[in-house]
Amino acid sequence: MTPNDFAIPPDDRFFEDYLPGNVYECGHIPVSEAEIIEFAGRYDPQEMHVDPEAAARGRFGGLVASGWHTAAMTMRLIVDSFLPTAASLASPGIDELRWLKPVRPGDVLRVRVTVVEATPSRSRSDRGMVRSLVEVLNQDGDVVMSMKGMNIIRRRGQP
Amino acid sequence: MTPNDFAIPPDDRFFEDYLPGNVYECGHIPVSEAEIIEFAGRYDPQEMHVDPEAAARGRFGGLVASGWHTAAMTMRLIVDSFLPTAASLASPGIDELRWLKPVRPGDVLRVRVTVVEATPSRSRSDRGMVRSLVEVLNQDGDVVMSMKGMNIIRRRGQP
Repeated sequence: MTPNDFAIPPDDRFFEDYLPGNVYECGHIPVSEAEIIEFAGRYDPQEMHVDPEAAARGRFGGLVASGWHTAAMTMRLIVDSFLPTAASLASPGIDELRWLKPVRPGDVLRVRVTVVEATPSRSRSDRGMVRSLVEVLNQDGDVVMSMKGMNIIRRRGQP
Repeated sequence: MTPNDFAIPPDDRFFEDYLPGNVYECGHIPVSEAEIIEFAGRYDPQEMHVDPEAAARGRFGGLVASGWHTAAMTMRLIVDSFLPTAASLASPGIDELRWLKPVRPGDVLRVRVTVVEATPSRSRSDRGMVRSLVEVLNQDGDVVMSMKGMNIIRRRGQP
């Protein structure tokens, strides 16, 4: 199956639409220095994320985004392009979140989600669990972050 | 060892100070409706996180914080009270991030970090890896989120 070869828009998706092997390309997000500093100032105020001059002298040679900021930007693309708008119920969590390369001001990130497994719930017939591999790439094609996601999604035709 | 029984403030901590079994109580953070909506509006705009009226009719019976927002608030407490200010080098990632209970407006979260393992690097003598269990509790003592963290921390007396 080709990336983006999905006729069903997020508004109309249900559990049954997430087939193992499906690949969802979830758009782009540009990373600005201002947003890196704003996010980190509130949630991750380490020098490498909030102080460009100190960061330039540090081990990354410049400002880098908080890993949690990268995860949050990733979530935005997942909500916009992967999750079903109405049928998304919850997520129990994330496995193997990895920050692989620095994310820097001026980078443009894109997100690719590959469905790994889709399992109907045994105890609740109205839903199933979709497991996925989420990869975040920069403009050079480097994978800067990856994680294994879990999403509980309503089945089609269920109340 | 008693929680908070640590003479060494974050400014002066190095790898050697993170002993397995050490428990760090990392302060409190109040959760406001305004911040839930602001964070989610930007990074996780699902109805349950941004629309109080729709959320009231939904499965959580009210607005709940984005799991990524809870993780970001947690990071702030970890930066303020757990990580060494100067000796924190990086984190390769997170394992087994779990969102266990809803986080709601008016909740007050606290964070407890327990050191699980501290391993000097084999290849680089100036640093080591600290593995920890991070637990986020609400005002009722419920664990609302947990994760296994990894932090690369500089050893004492290294350039």
